[in-house]
Order: sequence, then C-alpha cells, then structure tokens
Amino acid sequence: MVKIAILGHGVVGSGVAELFYKNKKSIEKHAGCELDIKYILDLRDFPDLPYSDKFTKNFDDILNDSEITAVAECMGGVEPAFTFVKACLENGKSVSTSNKELVAKKGDILLAAAKEHNCNFFFEASVGGAIPIIRPLHRCLAANDIDKVAGILNGTTNFILTKMYNDNMSFDDALKLAQELGYAEKDPTADVEGHDACRKICIISSLVFGKHVYPENVYTKGISEIQLCDVADADILGHSVKLVASVRRLDDNRILPAVMPMLVPHENIMAGVSDVFNAVLVYGDGIDKAMFYGRGAGKLPTASAVLGDVIEAVKHKVTVFSQSWESSSDSSFIAPVEEFSAKWYFRVPADCPEIGEGAYTDDNGTAFITSDELSFEQATSKAKELSALAYFPVLE
Amino acid sequence: MVKIAILGHGVVGSGVAELFYKNKKSIEKHAGCELDIKYILDLRDFPDLPYSDKFTKNFDDILNDSEITAVAECMGGVEPAFTFVKACLENGKSVSTSNKELVAKKGDILLAAAKEHNCNFFFEASVGGAIPIIRPLHRCLAANDIDKVAGILNGTTNFILTKMYNDNMSFDDALKLAQELGYAEKDPTADVEGHDACRKICIISSLVFGKHVYPENVYTKGISEIQLCDVADADILGHSVKLVASVRRLDDNRILPAVMPMLVPHENIMAGVSDVFNAVLVYGDGIDKAMFYGRGAGKLPTASAVLGDVIEAVKHKVTVFSQSWESSSDSSFIAPVEEFSAKWYFRVPADCPEIGEGAYTDDNGTAFITSDELSFEQATSKAKELSALAYFPVLE
Repeated sequence: MVKIAILGHGVVGSGVAELFYKNKKSIEKHAGCELDIKYILDLRDFPDLPYSDKFTKNFDDILNDSEITAVAECMGGVEPAFTFVKACLENGKSVSTSNKELVAKKGDILLAAAKEHNCNFFFEASVGGAIPIIRPLHRCLAANDIDKVAGILNGTTNFILTKMYNDNMSFDDALKLAQELGYAEKDPTADVEGHDACRKICIISSLVFGKHVYPENVYTKGISEIQLCDVADADILGHSVKLVASVRRLDDNRILPAVMPMLVPHENIMAGVSDVFNAVLVYGDGIDKAMFYGRGAGKLPTASAVLGDVIEAVKHKVTVFSQSWESSSDSSFIAPVEEFSAKWYFRVPADCPEIGEGAYTDDNGTAFITSDELSFEQATSKAKELSALAYFPVLE
Repeated sequence: MVKIAILGHGVVGSGVAELFYKNKKSIEKHAGCELDIKYILDLRDFPDLPYSDKFTKNFDDILNDSEITAVAECMGGVEPAFTFVKACLENGKSVSTSNKELVAKKGDILLAAAKEHNCNFFFEASVGGAIPIIRPLHRCLAANDIDKVAGILNGTTNFILTKMYNDNMSFDDALKLAQELGYAEKDPTADVEGHDACRKICIISSLVFGKHVYPENVYTKGISEIQLCDVADADILGHSVKLVASVRRLDDNRILPAVMPMLVPHENIMAGVSDVFNAVLVYGDGIDKAMFYGRGAGKLPTASAVLGDVIEAVKHKVTVFSQSWESSSDSSFIAPVEEFSAKWYFRVPADCPEIGEGAYTDDNGTAFITSDELSFEQATSKAKELSALAYFPVLE
C-alpha cells in the first residue's frame, strides 16, 4: 500500500481527492499497487467530507512520515509551496504540482533537488490543465528536433476573444461575463495581461530547450487593448485573433519566447480552439506538427493531470532525467522581442496612402496583412509611419 | 552503448534510420545512454547508403545477438512480422512497431510474450502516425474513467473528403488525386473501405477497455458511397462529413466500436481536421475531452513515433504493465452496431411528407437531422420507410 499526501484543499486539491476516490480501483490498476491518501494539508476544517479524518494543519506530519512516497502540491503561489515542495523532495518524496508560478520561477531548483534525492518533480498540470503536453514533449516526441511551440495557454482570454468573435461582445462585456461564469478572477490582471500564459510558455521553453527561462525575460502583451473591429476585420481577412504564447529557436540557437495577441489563419487547426479550451501546437523535424487540445483549467481537468503524475511518481522509483533543465545564470540565450519576425496585420486610417494587397476598408479604417515578414522592430516603425490604429503579428 | 535493430527498410524503416542519425545526439540525451543501429533487416541491397554496412538478410543475426536490446519492426503485414517480433520478445528484446495490422490481430499474444520475458512491446506508431496517443491514453490520462474515443484515423479518406468539401471534387476525382500525390495506394480498398481505421480503433479499444477487440467484430463502413451533395447539404446544416472510428462504453459495460462516415458539427474541433491529418478525441470523467492531432502517416512522422518507443524501451528495463490488455475468447463484451445510438442525417426525396425541423431542400432532395437519437436499427428502418437517398449518424 502506497500512501500519498495532498497539499492544499482548494479547487484543484479537492478535485484530486474527489477524482482519486471516484476512480481508485482503476488508478491502482494503472499504478500497479494499492494506493491511499493519508494526509491533506489545509488550514481550514472540512468536518463533513467522507475523508475528513485525513486533514492536518501541520506540514511536518507529512514531511516526517516515511510512509508518504508521493505528494500532490495544489496550494498555488510561490510560498510556502516552494519551501514545502523542496523539503519533500529533499526527503526523497516525489512531488506532482499544478502550480505554474512555482515551476516557472523555481523549476530548476526543484528539478535539481529531485535529481539529487533520487525522486521526481512532475508538473504536467502546470501547463494546459488536463492536456497531456509535458510528457508527450519530452517522451513521445523525444526523437524530434523541436524548433517551435505555439499555444493558446489561457482559457480566460480565449473565452473573452471567443465571445468578441462569436457574439460581437466588447472586451469589457466579455470580461464581465467571464467573471460571472467563474472563468475570470475578480482581479483579472494575471489572465488578461498575459502573465499566466507567460508562466506556461516559460515552462515549455525551459523543458524543450533545456535552460530555465524566467517570466521577466519574456515579452508579454495581453488582450485588454483589442478592439471589436480588429476581431471583425481579422475575420474578414481569414484569421482569428488569439492570445498566442510561443517560443521558437532562431538560426543562431538563441530562443525567442513571447506572449502576444496574434492572428491565426482560419485553416490552422488552432483557429478553431474556442471558449475556455487550450491547445498547444508543437513543430518538430519528425512530426512536422502536432496539436494537443483540451481544458486548460478547472477542478477535475487539472486534478486529472496531477493524479496522472502521482501515478507516474509511484511507478518510477528513479528520477526521470529527460523531464529536466539546467539553471540559467544569464539570459543571453533569449533573443529580444525586437527580433520576432512574422507577417503583420495593420489597421490604419482609411486615408492612409500605403496599403497592402487584399486590404479591407470600412468605417474603422483599412485593415491589411503584409506580404512580407517584418521584425517586431520594423513593424513598430511601420506602425508609427502609417499612424496605425492597431497591429498584430500573424501566426505562420 | 545500446545496440538496436530495424526490421524492414521500406518507407518507415528508412525513416527510422534517417531520423535516428539526424538527431542521434539528442536521442541519446533523452535515452540516457549512447545508442547505435547495429542491424537493418531487408532482403534488398542498399549499397549507397552511409549505413550500408548495417544490412543483413538473416533475421537470426539479430535474434541471436545478445547486444541487441531493442528492435524496431517496420515491415508491415502479419507474417513474417509476427514470427520475428514474437521471437525477439521471447529472447527478452523489446520491440517497437508501426504495424497496425500486427497489433490489431496479434497484440494480446505479443503483449503476453513481452510480460513473460520482462521486456516491452510498444506500438505508439501503429495509431495516428506521429500523434502521441497510446502513451497519453494509458499514462497521462490514467486517472480518468474513459468512456468514449472518436477519431479521424485515416489520412487518405480525410484527404478525399477535404477535397470533396473544399474543391467540390467528386469522390472518384479526389481518390485519383490522392493516388497521384502518393496518399492512396493503387488498390485503395484498405483505406477507402475503412479497414485501416478499423484496425486502429481496435487497438485503441483494446487498450482503453482492457480486452482484445478483433477487426472482424467491428462494424466498418467506408466512404466510397458518399456523394458530393451530401457533403454540401451537411455543410449547410452546419456539419462536416468525416470517416469516424469510434468506441464507446454502454451502460451495461459492453463496448461499441464502429467505423463509419459521420457528420461532425462545425463547432466540434474535429470538424477542422483536414487533408491527411488525423485526430483523436478522448472523453473522460476528469478531462471532459481532449484531442490529439497530427500527421497520421508518412515516413518521418511514423519514424518519430517508432523512435520515441525505442527510447522508452531502452529506458525501461521492466515491462510497462499499464500498456497491455487481455486476450478475449468470446466477443460478447462487444455490442452489435444495431445498438449504436445517435442523431441522424437523412437525405430523402423532396416530395417526402415527413421531414424534421430545419430541413433543407434542393435538387438533390431534402436533407435534415433528427431531433432525437435513434439506434442504428431504428435509423435503418426509418431510412427504408422514407426511401432515404442517404443517411449518416451525427457525432455528439
């Protein structure tokens, strides 16, 4: 019988307990052994739950119990999660986390601790919720030279953009609806301004390219300035506006991670990813491209990913070294956003003299897509020159 | 240094060698050890290849070489692949295969042999080519109770249907184009009549539900009878016609696998899967739904999946028991297609008195979708009653 512990009984932590007891039999079959939850760490009391006897307010109960071999961290935030997770790993207890902030900021340190103490730090749930993406990236696609990843990694913003597109809602109205439905926080900054997506592309970049990428080194622009007319004009030009978190390797082996609104061509499968769903497109020399799609957040979807990792942790007695990366002392391997190259969408005043082919003019100005690629820097200059009302890069 | 062997140097086998040498360094990093190809089995000579010294015409060279720990089977067909793979497994050599016919017909026997001899029989490449689906199903989604899987599992038929939809091409013209482009065989029966997709849904069904599902127990209908007017009418009714291979678990725990043309609603992400791409939608109680998308065939995409498995085989010294299923002596756990339940699309003569809501009439008759679910049996009766010109189920 293997005993596990859950840190935190919020949305995700309670989902882990719920899904575990619902599917205990088949989870044990997959894990190859009997399993039970021994502790749930939370400062609150939950006297009415069928598993209310599992709760503890004292982390040391878990840390000092040698029966506990795997821990699910579902507290969120950097502290005390970091201290707790590090202590678990240093005691040889494998940890599975849904905490993207923790992985994006401290992943290298925690991976090193796991390696040193011959256990595992797993984080499938930290990117794309229910979507299996971390394990496919480093295991299933291990024979590929991956040179680009682009994803819709935030469900809140994708819901807002879908409402703007489908229902002609303004950004403000769509955000309000998202808040009413529980898809957006009262303070929606982390989602709307792209910080959440940024953390996730940091994790993917670190895993794929092998060096820790910190959020502060990644250009991040959210969707709060997007206007309805740009969503409509982009559609007429054959594209959907999406908040895209991407990373690509440049010819000189530096990498360029970025989060920004982009135009996705309708024929790209990612254009059809709507509502709160997330998706990750991976480009490699063997596969060409593959996409992973599903619910990027939510109680049971995230719990599914955490528990999948717990099962892996129970099965793997040794450190899975392919799911790891090095610390990075400087950020010179990250190219500045000025080098980001793409075709660009511009919306300019209708009387603007210089317009591209296939331009579309209405009351809101003239919208067009450049026929050539421009760097971010060139696009910014061109936007000034044309007094552009809006401009966004186009996903290739 | 771990030594591997490739059985067969056709499209996939040569792709495995090509991708291996291209990405040798990073493959070794993922595998955690040095790796090389020691043998390639083929009856033909390839004197001009940089690795022409690896070729042998004698399978016993591989079987009897204790240095060989992992074998990639890329010959296709049941024999001699089955005999060779079984012999490898019985000698403790793990095997990774791209051969869906072999897995669909003999998977249970080969999985048992692997288990008995403490090695692995892997088959990620046998379903969905480059798409990671086998490992995500039994590992990443291990905490889920999966009750339905539906996929576009054949690239040839999806290419033909895409051409019919996008370019108004007839089935015959689209098939001819597919043959010219090398997407369809000279004898296209296995693809067009659904047998290829059937083998793949057999493998998925066996893995998800734990008992071997044989192709002869799966209702299989291809796309050769689909008419342009049905593709057009389905579109007007908000759907795309796709060849869908699906399996669902019924309330009494029997399962119902089937391959047939279905109408996929435009708002379903799978409706956007076009050309030769494949996709698999998985429904589970934790994830709700997730989709895996990519190239379902081709030299390097398939090689990517085979090599991913070879890396796993090298890393795993013990049998991965979760990727397994039992033999099935009888087929009573498989429900007959007559019980398949769905809403249905009908196209009936324009003078037909009984039509559903939202019907659409043109020169080709009246097309409509039923408001209620009907079993396959009920739909067949209704089709007779209405003298239907065509009828297809709708994917939920």
